[in-house]
Amino acid sequence: MPMPGQAAYRGIHLIVTVSMIRFGNKMNVFEAIEKRHSYRGAFTDQLLPRQDLRRIVQAGIQAPSGCNKQTTSFVIVDEPELVQRIRQLHPRNQAMCTAQAYIACVVDRNPPAVYADYQFQVEDCSTATENILLAVTALGYATVWIDGWLRLENHADAIGELLALPQDKILRIILPIGVPAEMHMQRDKIPFDQRAWFNRYNSLGE
Amino acid sequence: MPMPGQAAYRGIHLIVTVSMIRFGNKMNVFEAIEKRHSYRGAFTDQLLPRQDLRRIVQAGIQAPSGCNKQTTSFVIVDEPELVQRIRQLHPRNQAMCTAQAYIACVVDRNPPAVYADYQFQVEDCSTATENILLAVTALGYATVWIDGWLRLENHADAIGELLALPQDKILRIILPIGVPAEMHMQRDKIPFDQRAWFNRYNSLGE
Repeated sequence: MPMPGQAAYRGIHLIVTVSMIRFGNKMNVFEAIEKRHSYRGAFTDQLLPRQDLRRIVQAGIQAPSGCNKQTTSFVIVDEPELVQRIRQLHPRNQAMCTAQAYIACVVDRNPPAVYADYQFQVEDCSTATENILLAVTALGYATVWIDGWLRLENHADAIGELLALPQDKILRIILPIGVPAEMHMQRDKIPFDQRAWFNRYNSLGE
Repeated sequence: MPMPGQAAYRGIHLIVTVSMIRFGNKMNVFEAIEKRHSYRGAFTDQLLPRQDLRRIVQAGIQAPSGCNKQTTSFVIVDEPELVQRIRQLHPRNQAMCTAQAYIACVVDRNPPAVYADYQFQVEDCSTATENILLAVTALGYATVWIDGWLRLENHADAIGELLALPQDKILRIILPIGVPAEMHMQRDKIPFDQRAWFNRYNSLGE
């Protein structure tokens, strides 16, 4: 069995990736859910066609949102100079500093209530992002959900300024996207029986 | 074209639903994203096999979570007496009061920080829920994300008590599930060009 780094492995990987990009839009939903993973490796030099970027973001647009308010908006970054400036902000994260494009998920800085006293912008943004992750996977690309880092050292505002966000909007999540140079997989998950039960919390398996 | 309520419409709907349940696990991810919708109608009497409920929740388990902490847990309600008691709590919502099963998504009442001072339990729970919604869709069932209502009049605590949640856990989202008796569709979404742009927020189409 070829190992990562070997030429044969790269060859197999290339075939798999190209097949996914060509036929990926037929990927079934359970397969996409299983294959989706947080990709922290490097990306290849391959650029992403705008048609694919649009399709990926359209998946986010179709996500549910509290009271259908659709509070998340998206800036798709593919201009080489802008890509370069964002890459430089996170040199320790391989995916962030080699991405060919980014999808920036934007919400209100001070969200208004939409149901009683509640607003659901974090939920809205998260579901949109999950749809985007699945679409990225189905089309043979990879990405990783970057979130906490944006809140440190004003990264959200620094990138927000590059993307000309208005003062009342804030960058909540950013997704570096590209063709993965390495093959990664979904990390292990806690088994079903330790996270899910029938009828009563933490009940014995039925 | 048959209209909702007419026998011919019901016939077509039955065929579509049965086909989806039989072949739905082959549904491609973009189709599932497009077909997913908030179903607020009535459900039929058809019970859900545990195999399907497990598969649906497994999709939630495979969702990403902040620092892979997998903070959401799930209680799947299919015991007739429990189903009946939950139905009675929301008589005005057709989906809630005719569901054949529920999936309760549970988080910590006081989530600990996992990255700097931040925690991501709302994000975790939302992405898990989105995966669940897509799995529900792919298998030919329907559901609706019930969230704000749980926070009113102690509904979360009332249901939490029925499900034997420990004191430090809280019911964040509940999903009533069944075979839809009516055919609904995803509500209209704001067009791409009004929610997404290339390179700069609210920039002209490129």
